[in-house]
Amino acid sequence: MSLSNKSTSSNSQDVKQVVSEQNVNQTALAGLLSSYHELNPSCVDELHEEPSALEFMRYVARNRPFVVRGAAVDWKAFLKWDAEYLLNTMGSEKINVAITPFGNADAVVFQGNIPVFIKPYETSEAFDQALGYIQQQEDSGQGQSEVKYLQTQNDNLRNEYEMLFADVPKSIPFARIALEQQHPDAVNFWLGNSHSVTSLHKDNYENVYVQIRGQKHFVLLSPVETACVNEKPLPAATYERRHTTESSGEVALSLRIDELAEKVPVAIWDPDAPDHNATPMSHLAQPLRVTLNEGDMLYLPALWYHKVSQSCGNQGYCCAVNYWYDMDFGGDFWAASKFIRDVALQTADK
Amino acid sequence: MSLSNKSTSSNSQDVKQVVSEQNVNQTALAGLLSSYHELNPSCVDELHEEPSALEFMRYVARNRPFVVRGAAVDWKAFLKWDAEYLLNTMGSEKINVAITPFGNADAVVFQGNIPVFIKPYETSEAFDQALGYIQQQEDSGQGQSEVKYLQTQNDNLRNEYEMLFADVPKSIPFARIALEQQHPDAVNFWLGNSHSVTSLHKDNYENVYVQIRGQKHFVLLSPVETACVNEKPLPAATYERRHTTESSGEVALSLRIDELAEKVPVAIWDPDAPDHNATPMSHLAQPLRVTLNEGDMLYLPALWYHKVSQSCGNQGYCCAVNYWYDMDFGGDFWAASKFIRDVALQTADK
Repeated sequence: MSLSNKSTSSNSQDVKQVVSEQNVNQTALAGLLSSYHELNPSCVDELHEEPSALEFMRYVARNRPFVVRGAAVDWKAFLKWDAEYLLNTMGSEKINVAITPFGNADAVVFQGNIPVFIKPYETSEAFDQALGYIQQQEDSGQGQSEVKYLQTQNDNLRNEYEMLFADVPKSIPFARIALEQQHPDAVNFWLGNSHSVTSLHKDNYENVYVQIRGQKHFVLLSPVETACVNEKPLPAATYERRHTTESSGEVALSLRIDELAEKVPVAIWDPDAPDHNATPMSHLAQPLRVTLNEGDMLYLPALWYHKVSQSCGNQGYCCAVNYWYDMDFGGDFWAASKFIRDVALQTADK
Repeated sequence: MSLSNKSTSSNSQDVKQVVSEQNVNQTALAGLLSSYHELNPSCVDELHEEPSALEFMRYVARNRPFVVRGAAVDWKAFLKWDAEYLLNTMGSEKINVAITPFGNADAVVFQGNIPVFIKPYETSEAFDQALGYIQQQEDSGQGQSEVKYLQTQNDNLRNEYEMLFADVPKSIPFARIALEQQHPDAVNFWLGNSHSVTSLHKDNYENVYVQIRGQKHFVLLSPVETACVNEKPLPAATYERRHTTESSGEVALSLRIDELAEKVPVAIWDPDAPDHNATPMSHLAQPLRVTLNEGDMLYLPALWYHKVSQSCGNQGYCCAVNYWYDMDFGGDFWAASKFIRDVALQTADK
């Protein structure tokens, strides 16, 4: 790997050196991926009861996911959250609804040839009306109409959906003790149908995700696989509702670029379409796939890339709850993960 | 950071690009060091009682050291290991002694202009004779004579020094439970005087180090600081005893290169002489310094670089015990640490 002997500076040698240096970083990144995959299982650990705080801390130390089958089968939420109960409890309370044309909230879309990062149109609706729409769309299979998803991710279960919060634990004991956080930073409620897909992204949180109704399908990539996901800084955009013509009463979703917003780093590689938007490293990724059934719990470690899709049971909706705990920025994990990403980005840029 | 627009290939642009790429890796390494230091304390945590297994696991997860003051003051070893007791127990048992001219076992020495990694001359001696020599040298201040150190690091406390092993715990409870290892991989006994210094190196072990007599002075560097320590592959060498002249009966230590041995990666930067053998990154290191007094315990996390020197009490020797537990090669820590080192080595090589 030593380039130290190449002290002459003829043109061809410089070119060779540029190529070598690029290769050298790519070789180091490929080595990282291969040693990581050699040293770690190629599937998500399955537990059949909740871990102790110490057992959980070992997973946090390794930054590795696990699923606990049936962890929530005794939760009130699991026992009660049928459509009738949700309607009785929430009624026509106004809640935030994310609306997209194709179920593509927080996703990449192309405007002409330009990829942009699109956020949903957000509006306020009565809960009973939104749930009815979601169920009806699922039952009728009408993927072509607007897709609605209740997914505010702003601690909504302790706010908008406060009346449902009594049906779930206030915190997850093993996480509360291990992470020394009396309360999670946020508890989120999710309700949608099979038309919504959350595209590949990562969060700065330790995440405990619990499926209550329907199934959730996760595709997971470790933060060390950052060189595979092809992160690009994209212009931010938002869907908004506009009249289709000036005179018409009809409205439709259209895209507006947020000119003043900073560009957003977005993973544009999709592990389900691995030949598109690939980096030279993407073929070295080993995505983990896991499906959560009703009552299952997933520990999704901080900074893991995840893509999430869902399928509904016979009630025509999926719903879930997740707990975000602050991740530990101390130690070497965050700094080392950032470094790997920095090297990956600059190598991809060449 | 993007270099993607530089698609022309004139000579001056190539040169600029070579410089840029080197700078880009150096910038990433400097960013790693600065974010690590911003996010972590600049001293070793001090505890006054042993941590629980869970508290310990949080330190392992962070790969951060701590010292427990007075952790071993109830150990039989702490209460008993005066010279008289050691002599009574070990008597004239044959033990392995590491002998060097200057107390420089496992260190860098120069043969002419060539740095080599030197291992000590190892021989077998009676314990009472070796202890007497070590004490006498300490008391007389004769640093110019050969330096002896009992430091085999091959699980010697459960073998050569088995008669002393009953005086220490068989394992450290918090580590045994947290790391799920019934027994440590090795338990080592160390006995020497202030003339011995262990130069900067790292081990693939979680290390619990307990000072019994005298003081130990540690200088510590996190594995993320690998770009600061200037690791170089050096020829291996060993001290051996030869007659000073063919006819003379006198013997002296001389250095023999191990021609067949592979080169050894050695940190040639010394945090106590920071201007020598420095890399462009060395000035960004923030070495942690901690002194263990009699009865203190240090958790030295896996892969941390450490330099160790010692001072003796009035009995003229220092002694210590350490427990090596296997580190976890799973998760991201080992793979990420290796990657950082790979990038650091190739950047230094340019």
